[in-house]
Amino acid sequence: MNSETQPISDQQRRAEDDVVQRVVRSFDGCPDPRLKQVMVSLVEHLHAFLRDVRVTEEEWAAAIDFLTAAGRITDDTRQEFVLLSDTLGASMQTIAINNQVYGEATEATVFGPFFVAGAPRIELGGDMAFGAVGEPCWVEGTVTDAGGSPIPGARIDVWEADDEGQYDVQHDDGRVAARAHLFTDADGGYRFWGITPTPYPIPDDGPVGKMLEAVGRSPYRAAHLHFMVTADGHRRLVTHIFVRGDELLDKDSVFGVKESLVKDFVEQPSGTPTPDGREIDGPWSRVRFDVVLAPGASAATVPGA
Amino acid sequence: MNSETQPISDQQRRAEDDVVQRVVRSFDGCPDPRLKQVMVSLVEHLHAFLRDVRVTEEEWAAAIDFLTAAGRITDDTRQEFVLLSDTLGASMQTIAINNQVYGEATEATVFGPFFVAGAPRIELGGDMAFGAVGEPCWVEGTVTDAGGSPIPGARIDVWEADDEGQYDVQHDDGRVAARAHLFTDADGGYRFWGITPTPYPIPDDGPVGKMLEAVGRSPYRAAHLHFMVTADGHRRLVTHIFVRGDELLDKDSVFGVKESLVKDFVEQPSGTPTPDGREIDGPWSRVRFDVVLAPGASAATVPGA
Repeated sequence: MNSETQPISDQQRRAEDDVVQRVVRSFDGCPDPRLKQVMVSLVEHLHAFLRDVRVTEEEWAAAIDFLTAAGRITDDTRQEFVLLSDTLGASMQTIAINNQVYGEATEATVFGPFFVAGAPRIELGGDMAFGAVGEPCWVEGTVTDAGGSPIPGARIDVWEADDEGQYDVQHDDGRVAARAHLFTDADGGYRFWGITPTPYPIPDDGPVGKMLEAVGRSPYRAAHLHFMVTADGHRRLVTHIFVRGDELLDKDSVFGVKESLVKDFVEQPSGTPTPDGREIDGPWSRVRFDVVLAPGASAATVPGA
Repeated sequence: MNSETQPISDQQRRAEDDVVQRVVRSFDGCPDPRLKQVMVSLVEHLHAFLRDVRVTEEEWAAAIDFLTAAGRITDDTRQEFVLLSDTLGASMQTIAINNQVYGEATEATVFGPFFVAGAPRIELGGDMAFGAVGEPCWVEGTVTDAGGSPIPGARIDVWEADDEGQYDVQHDDGRVAARAHLFTDADGGYRFWGITPTPYPIPDDGPVGKMLEAVGRSPYRAAHLHFMVTADGHRRLVTHIFVRGDELLDKDSVFGVKESLVKDFVEQPSGTPTPDGREIDGPWSRVRFDVVLAPGASAATVPGA
């Protein structure tokens, strides 16, 4: 039955309104006011969606099947629901809502599904690649507050994909690579060796990948390097930096790109002396990323982790 | 950061609008107009929900965790996403949209997660219990079209829980019980032995059960007997009948009750002769349910099956 071809009678509208109202009233006894607010709003928007598109029974069954398939492929290292949230822009909207523009504070972007708690610590100037293959990249900058004062001892977590576009957890050998944490020095400065980011598709062999293909979207993310910066008395910053010139900047599959986060990764020809005297056999790159933290409470929990 | 305590600046609103617009535009190349319509509407309603409640990062992470847990518990005989759809009224709304009021046609209600294709056929007057424990119940009626003409050969699928509130598939011994199909006779009549429905909770040991508990809702369904009636040239009817007098009629956990579907299950004292001469040791009940089918195409596929 395709209801679109039939006019919707007043009687029919009342029947549909009645369903919404019965569901909304079922939350009357909810003891938690915030939970009640969220559930009522969820129900109202969900029902409005179903009614606006005049969903068919087959389509709703397909939606259930989609969620079921997403659940089936999700495990400790694959998070299809995060991919779904990311590709519908819900992750980025949540970031926007919770990281309101604050002066010159560095902008946040999506967390993604590949953060792993407990990554190894490296010293300043250390190498976070841990054997991950890719062009070496010297990353340096400062962490300051909104007034420009340095923040010593700020914790910086960094993680990225290798030049095959795979995070360590996507390899099946249990490796820990291209992820680490370090702390800023007394002047708020930091520096480390990573690898030059390369574009990669989000995992597209599951239902989210099928959805992207069906709607004609690319699964590719613009090349990026993940940062999470935490310091007492400051809003935790979850962000990436992107590579200026990357053709994917305007069609990032998870809508993570912000102009302020696009940085110059300056290519260094083979033989160029490195900042710390490390000998590198081939070209390398360098990038500067100065982080400004907004004031606030640093959240105790990590979203999605 | 709880954004509710901060005024939302015009700059902030524009930033959030910008996320929505970028996601909507990502579907510009969708080759299927209907899919594009559905995805754009989904994105608009999803983002409106997130913005209306000013979702926190912790709440959105909890939503992802909820879906992940729902995926983990779902298998061939447990469908947590259908339970979620049911308890949010989305299933009932989909039913309402696709089964528009048509004259005196019998009303539809939720399909539920316990239908199994391929249930055994019984003859008219046969017993669909197949050993399921419960008070015997004689069910009879007719299937007619909207003009009152009988529909011979209409297929009736029936299924229900036993008196422990369990469907066969919820037992772990592979039994097939309390489900069958039969066909109407030349006068559109049908009759069979089932069991008197008893109330039961939807499976509440998973995330949906936790949600119902958190919001102060009961997991119980009003007692019911499932019907699916199909006949060429008629809209497929998926419905239940409910027991008049059941205290749960106004708080059914999946919003499935409609007044027109509440029927008199008339209790018969022990020793009352049965319609077909069957000897029963104890009380039994009987109910009449006359089905009227609306015209339409009978869907080829079964939702959720």
